[in-house]
Amino acid sequence: MKIKYSIVIHGGAGAIPKNVPEKDKKIYLDALEHILKFGNDLLSSGRTALDTAELVVRRFEDSPLFNAGKGAVFNSEGRNELDASVMDGRDRSCGAVTCVTRIKNPVTLARIVMEKSSHILLNGQGAETFAKENGMKFVRSSYFFTQKRYDQWLKLKEKNQTALDHSSGLTNSAKGTVGCVVKDSYGDLAAATSTGGMTNKKYGRIGDTPIIGAGNFADNSTCAVSCTGTGEEFMRTVAAYEIHALIKYKKLNLQQALDHFTSTVLKADTGGLIAVDRKGNHAYSFNSKGMYRGAADSNGFFEVKIWE
Amino acid sequence: MKIKYSIVIHGGAGAIPKNVPEKDKKIYLDALEHILKFGNDLLSSGRTALDTAELVVRRFEDSPLFNAGKGAVFNSEGRNELDASVMDGRDRSCGAVTCVTRIKNPVTLARIVMEKSSHILLNGQGAETFAKENGMKFVRSSYFFTQKRYDQWLKLKEKNQTALDHSSGLTNSAKGTVGCVVKDSYGDLAAATSTGGMTNKKYGRIGDTPIIGAGNFADNSTCAVSCTGTGEEFMRTVAAYEIHALIKYKKLNLQQALDHFTSTVLKADTGGLIAVDRKGNHAYSFNSKGMYRGAADSNGFFEVKIWE
Repeated sequence: MKIKYSIVIHGGAGAIPKNVPEKDKKIYLDALEHILKFGNDLLSSGRTALDTAELVVRRFEDSPLFNAGKGAVFNSEGRNELDASVMDGRDRSCGAVTCVTRIKNPVTLARIVMEKSSHILLNGQGAETFAKENGMKFVRSSYFFTQKRYDQWLKLKEKNQTALDHSSGLTNSAKGTVGCVVKDSYGDLAAATSTGGMTNKKYGRIGDTPIIGAGNFADNSTCAVSCTGTGEEFMRTVAAYEIHALIKYKKLNLQQALDHFTSTVLKADTGGLIAVDRKGNHAYSFNSKGMYRGAADSNGFFEVKIWE
Repeated sequence: MKIKYSIVIHGGAGAIPKNVPEKDKKIYLDALEHILKFGNDLLSSGRTALDTAELVVRRFEDSPLFNAGKGAVFNSEGRNELDASVMDGRDRSCGAVTCVTRIKNPVTLARIVMEKSSHILLNGQGAETFAKENGMKFVRSSYFFTQKRYDQWLKLKEKNQTALDHSSGLTNSAKGTVGCVVKDSYGDLAAATSTGGMTNKKYGRIGDTPIIGAGNFADNSTCAVSCTGTGEEFMRTVAAYEIHALIKYKKLNLQQALDHFTSTVLKADTGGLIAVDRKGNHAYSFNSKGMYRGAADSNGFFEVKIWE
């Protein structure tokens, strides 16, 4: 049966240990299920791909369980620096922000950049000035604080290490980025991605999340993609756009494109991608131990997963 | 005859009026010729593609004629904010910096990011901290000052406009970005790009120059590319990587790929690209009125041009 709408979400990829306590596992699976159902309901009630992708990523940002918005990891100065991007598959409109510190929902700021500025990527204080002029909600930086992330940071800081939170070795900490890709009932695609980056990151490092074509991409003619994992690898491989090119020019189907990419292009143990195509097919692929993820569609498909 | 090495440079694209005074035209053509000869000599003496691309872009940065390094345009706060990137076609190593304000040669900092950090893109003060730790040369921000750029900025500021310097309407001001792509005698490719961005730019706007796959890309298997013009269009189209994909998957040759891109993908009057492929073929293509550019190779080809 033809798929009317379809949604895929991820809450990060990494070396998620399989022996996590059942109750911790349940907390994450419940959160994924809850967010996926929220997105699925939006789509079934006729919301657009762009609205759905943004609103779903806001839910991830508002949850302290995932590394985006509240619950973001700390940088080397003990601050939370947030990146996000959004892309509309209809005309490739896109917006992104990097290194913002006082915006509750960076993904919504990314959308406002897309819709109300002539630019695509705004940075730090400049992005926040733009946010203020556009009536965005600001929070104190303490809003992003969670004890777990702070303890992770202190531990890494002592060792002077930089890490995606999944590599900190802590149970339940494998959540590099969050993202959502959607095909709506009007046939349009959209992608949204948001992150707090790497724990103890230094030097104003910018990863793949706010980079169109690397961590996030959507084009109605092919697919919508969101990535998670070691950002530098997704930047070097121009990952999200490579999926588009494999479909458009190499004529692979969606799952083939993702599998080809994670098995032959992406360095081992880097992370993963989620995607939908214009027919509403969904796909995940990852070469890390696990990826928090889920997918649902208008035909009643609904699943959330962490490992295989 | 087989091409041993090949180099292409650009000094920006835009609405360069054809009626510029002969003496001004000569100043730019002489500068392009001088810089191109410098790069060609490096290659003939056996320097690598990566060294040559970096050293040529440093020359552009040191010249007050072009919008990169000294001579960069002013942002809305009356400051010079510089972006640069570099990519090695051998293994897709890459490095980039954005919004640095006190680094004499941002392209060299981009190379140091590539070689000495685990990251690809560093931002603002963080990038400068990294630069300091790696012994980079700092300058006062007044080093970047040129009266002409300052006057351009004052003029736009009064009108509250943002512009690539080519759209400021001033003679001889069409120089969005600078770049160099090289195929060396060892068969390796490299690309380097540097810019001061748009005059009167606001909100910490980041353009395509520091974005791998948008304004700059190199892969030995296909080509090295550098872009110039309205950055947002090159980001939305993932321009440099699209050229790679058109060659790799659509089997176009280099000139076909560039022409296809500027005529059917890139919005009219946006700018242009330069490229070399692994056989040493060179190509330019632009859909703006003009592009400061030049190309030379081991077979004695040598030209510098502004219009057709």
